[in-house]
Amino acid sequence: MNLRKLFAEHLSSWIMEMGPEGDVVLSSRVRLARNLKGYKFPSIASQEELAKVLSAVEKFITKSERELKLLRLGGLDALSRQELVEKYLISPEHAKDSPSKGVALDAKGEISVMVNEEDHLRLQVIKPGLAIEDAYKIANKVDDEFESALDYAFSSQFGYLTACPTNVGTGMRASVMLHLPGIVSLGQIERVATACSKLGLVVRGLYGEGTASKGNIFQISNQLSLGFSEQEILSHLHSVSQQIIEEERKSRQRLYEENKIEFEDQIYRAYGVLMYARRMDSSEALELLSRLKLGIDLGVVKDLEPVILKELVVAIRPAILQKIVGLTLEPGERDQKRAEIIRERLSQSN
Amino acid sequence: MNLRKLFAEHLSSWIMEMGPEGDVVLSSRVRLARNLKGYKFPSIASQEELAKVLSAVEKFITKSERELKLLRLGGLDALSRQELVEKYLISPEHAKDSPSKGVALDAKGEISVMVNEEDHLRLQVIKPGLAIEDAYKIANKVDDEFESALDYAFSSQFGYLTACPTNVGTGMRASVMLHLPGIVSLGQIERVATACSKLGLVVRGLYGEGTASKGNIFQISNQLSLGFSEQEILSHLHSVSQQIIEEERKSRQRLYEENKIEFEDQIYRAYGVLMYARRMDSSEALELLSRLKLGIDLGVVKDLEPVILKELVVAIRPAILQKIVGLTLEPGERDQKRAEIIRERLSQSN
Repeated sequence: MNLRKLFAEHLSSWIMEMGPEGDVVLSSRVRLARNLKGYKFPSIASQEELAKVLSAVEKFITKSERELKLLRLGGLDALSRQELVEKYLISPEHAKDSPSKGVALDAKGEISVMVNEEDHLRLQVIKPGLAIEDAYKIANKVDDEFESALDYAFSSQFGYLTACPTNVGTGMRASVMLHLPGIVSLGQIERVATACSKLGLVVRGLYGEGTASKGNIFQISNQLSLGFSEQEILSHLHSVSQQIIEEERKSRQRLYEENKIEFEDQIYRAYGVLMYARRMDSSEALELLSRLKLGIDLGVVKDLEPVILKELVVAIRPAILQKIVGLTLEPGERDQKRAEIIRERLSQSN
Repeated sequence: MNLRKLFAEHLSSWIMEMGPEGDVVLSSRVRLARNLKGYKFPSIASQEELAKVLSAVEKFITKSERELKLLRLGGLDALSRQELVEKYLISPEHAKDSPSKGVALDAKGEISVMVNEEDHLRLQVIKPGLAIEDAYKIANKVDDEFESALDYAFSSQFGYLTACPTNVGTGMRASVMLHLPGIVSLGQIERVATACSKLGLVVRGLYGEGTASKGNIFQISNQLSLGFSEQEILSHLHSVSQQIIEEERKSRQRLYEENKIEFEDQIYRAYGVLMYARRMDSSEALELLSRLKLGIDLGVVKDLEPVILKELVVAIRPAILQKIVGLTLEPGERDQKRAEIIRERLSQSN
């Protein structure tokens, strides 16, 4: 397998690039919730009404100069829908079968617009590293394009109207995905999460709301979308992120200097198991990849590209894994193929 | 470090060669206990008397055509004495300081004659693999040479007289060192040990009497030296060994076939940790090397020489390790150097 090539074909650009502060920040994401005037919110709309929303969006996309491709989720098999979830392009809720759900995607996997999720439109932009501002700029531009053709539900008092009151106002949710092995190792993640909460931010594990963290990966996002401007929300999240980045870097340095040999040994053992194991489940892979990434970022492991963690964390998920190798696999077979892909990708690193 | 060269300089020939049935049998050893007529046994002899015994042996060796070199243990530092213990050339008891103890060695590390251990002479020959008969032939020849010059304490009723009654008669102890990961994994080692005991044989762990097994390595030897001829003892040990070898091979095959993926995964994970760890204590090293050797012997791992286990099991011992690298090391430093030597030796395998 030429995994570099296969990964480039299957993985979004934000996964294949490091971006700013890439030693700690995996990605930045901005999501805008929008609804069309004159149609009920999806949860209470008839299928007929939802079909009209989807058609209106499709009509706009077809005419638009921005090259987006609309997929109707009803026309995709379960594996392909799951793949979109694992790539963060649609929500797990959106993957559930329905004739009138759709998603518009750009070629790079940077922009996605879910149609008829909780709101009529959920426009999302993901960028590599700490780039909340950049992600917002693109999202704002795409949003303007949509708004020029579609009539949004907007109140001069509340701002953009959304199905759930927590999204009213800017309709914006901005988030960063952080790799925090240092803070976790020093037992400080609870304190950081509590501090974030007091600052109006929410900390979640890798797979979003209600899930525990795996591989020391966390998402931090704004809790409120009302009462602040987009700029205020973005710069607040940016500045808190920078504080966490600093704390994470200091924590790593402290752990390393407290016992260099033990630290290096743990990193290299993780590297060894990743390079040699013949089967591996997702949890173990995330844990070992997290340790290896820490070693790469601290310069302990010098022969691997730092972007490997992000690539592999995404590539080893069940549906993406099967899409990359072009096979339908049972869970046991996936554990073997996962180990194989990790071995081969690490071997092809330089 | 060119470890192949360093190992060849420091390790005995039986360690560097596989020998017959080398997938299960690491080595065969024959030891003859002899005493000189007219001198008290070492435990009750005066230093003067012991010095006379040592001189008599030295005089014979100097004249003899067999190229043995006599070392006076009093003239060696503690590390060098410990090295001889770890190479199985002298007993731990013999390494304790005393002005009149000595050991005569050949260049290959195959023959050793301890002087003034429990008996005046303890003549030992080690061969690689299952070669009890060969080891005895050499031991017998060397014994004849000694007997031609030195007057042995011998009784026509009891045979050779020895300090401990368990050695009277032939004065012979024959043993084989076996690697039994299959039998241990299937929980059958207790049964095998009990069966051996009923057959007049003793099973011990890697470091001899009273120590637990490490790395699934066991020594099996005859319990009695009186009432049987040398030939009877040797052929009995040989035939029991062959039964154990067969059981071990069947056990390995069964374990492998019951779950090939799990089996291969465990072996490769051991290989990965051995190839990447930055520090490792002896116990872990033995355990992982045992697993790796099993993988080599079953053809799961194809790129390593099977003799590597034996080389490394010996080379990573504290004193030998320090002699090989030419440094005096603290225990923590030894764990690092041990990991380094294992990594490098495995990398230099082909």
